[in-house]
Amino acid sequence: MKTVSPGAVLVLGGARSGKSAFAERLAAETGVSKHYIATGRAWDDEMRERIEQHRAQRGSHGWVTHEEPLALPERINDTARKDRVLLVDCLTLWVTNLMLEGHDIKAAFDDLAAAIVTTPGRVVFVSNEVGLGIVPDNKMAREFRDHAGRLHQQVASLATEVYFVAAGLPLKMKG
Amino acid sequence: MKTVSPGAVLVLGGARSGKSAFAERLAAETGVSKHYIATGRAWDDEMRERIEQHRAQRGSHGWVTHEEPLALPERINDTARKDRVLLVDCLTLWVTNLMLEGHDIKAAFDDLAAAIVTTPGRVVFVSNEVGLGIVPDNKMAREFRDHAGRLHQQVASLATEVYFVAAGLPLKMKG
Amino acid sequence: MKTVSPGAVLVLGGARSGKSAFAERLAAETGVSKHYIATGRAWDDEMRERIEQHRAQRGSHGWVTHEEPLALPERINDTARKDRVLLVDCLTLWVTNLMLEGHDIKAAFDDLAAAIVTTPGRVVFVSNEVGLGIVPDNKMAREFRDHAGRLHQQVASLATEVYFVAAGLPLKMKG
Repeated sequence: MKTVSPGAVLVLGGARSGKSAFAERLAAETGVSKHYIATGRAWDDEMRERIEQHRAQRGSHGWVTHEEPLALPERINDTARKDRVLLVDCLTLWVTNLMLEGHDIKAAFDDLAAAIVTTPGRVVFVSNEVGLGIVPDNKMAREFRDHAGRLHQQVASLATEVYFVAAGLPLKMKG
Repeated sequence: MKTVSPGAVLVLGGARSGKSAFAERLAAETGVSKHYIATGRAWDDEMRERIEQHRAQRGSHGWVTHEEPLALPERINDTARKDRVLLVDCLTLWVTNLMLEGHDIKAAFDDLAAAIVTTPGRVVFVSNEVGLGIVPDNKMAREFRDHAGRLHQQVASLATEVYFVAAGLPLKMKG
Repeated sequence: MKTVSPGAVLVLGGARSGKSAFAERLAAETGVSKHYIATGRAWDDEMRERIEQHRAQRGSHGWVTHEEPLALPERINDTARKDRVLLVDCLTLWVTNLMLEGHDIKAAFDDLAAAIVTTPGRVVFVSNEVGLGIVPDNKMAREFRDHAGRLHQQVASLATEVYFVAAGLPLKMKG
């Protein structure tokens, strides 16, 4: 049985930076069974279309797909195995869902950290860097980028590898 | 006759990051005849002023200037020669113009890709990275950053060198 | 008496990127007396809370704190010594204050450049990269990011080290 070294990888990037495609290549290179955890919810037609585009781009090359908008740490705990790679796409949509449903953000982040530390498999996280523009007028948007930034720091500190992707090109920040 | 190795260079950066000045230095270092392709249109006084500032900063040190808001691939095909370097400033303004006039974006991007692959000269592209802030409220702005991101990936995959510029400092992503 | 090599360090990053914590570590590593120059003003409750969080995170491990929203160059001139490190957090809030009070931005930037060139101590500047999102609708926001970008280029050109921080991880751009 082929296995992976356990631990987390973080792939950060902007909108349409090619971060998902890069993360999929990282996952495929492990050579083990691939599980995809989609955190996005199809709130409206535009979101539905974006999810569909991701699905089409990813193709059906052996991915097992899970939809998990909220209970991400639990889903990782239940799904991860030493002969599997998990791709979580993406952390920022998970943060959005937690905020919209009024969950305890800090508790959820701590649960995710615990899941990363104890996972027997490999977990590749994709997330949007959203903090490099002008301070948003909207208070909820400011809170969102604060949460996202804190989560990225937390995951990056536990990850074995961190990449920043721009124009489809990965820049290794850690590992 | 001094000539250049053919191919494209992509210089990405944020607003006022020094990306244009860096691209101008790259172009000047080739030592061949320099042609500047400006894609920006002076829609209003502010834009006119920004274009004027760029022109003043660039100076008149031997640049031949072309204004080309839409037919960029054709202009590259017509202008490029093995003893010339072209500086295109910038791709994001070209995308803006294509969108505002209702052009077929995908066809235009494919034409640009073909121009890059076949060019006998060196072409340095400047573009704004716009995908690292909060998701914009405005649908057209979201479409714009999707188009820009896809174009950056496409050009970067064909380019021999890609740079990310921040605070006037280039970071080599490829090449 | 322990002293530092004189000069400036620039730490750029997005919102909640971990840039302040990284800059504090850089300052602490010098082993000399630490002075903190806070440029932020507590305009409202949210800002007051953010300033308080920074203060709590920094702790009281031997920092001497100065509040200086406007006369930053003068304060650096008055405070810097060869046996001290100054941490300025942050340049973007200083630019905001200059704009809101109608100061001469160019003159202020030149004064800061002069302070950097002549300082006998080490000065670590923290600043927000704000130019990597969509062009803001608001004219003042566009002017702000132009000013911030120019200031970053100016400080980076004089600095001995420049870092870009994302997800708590520093990327060395210069030095």
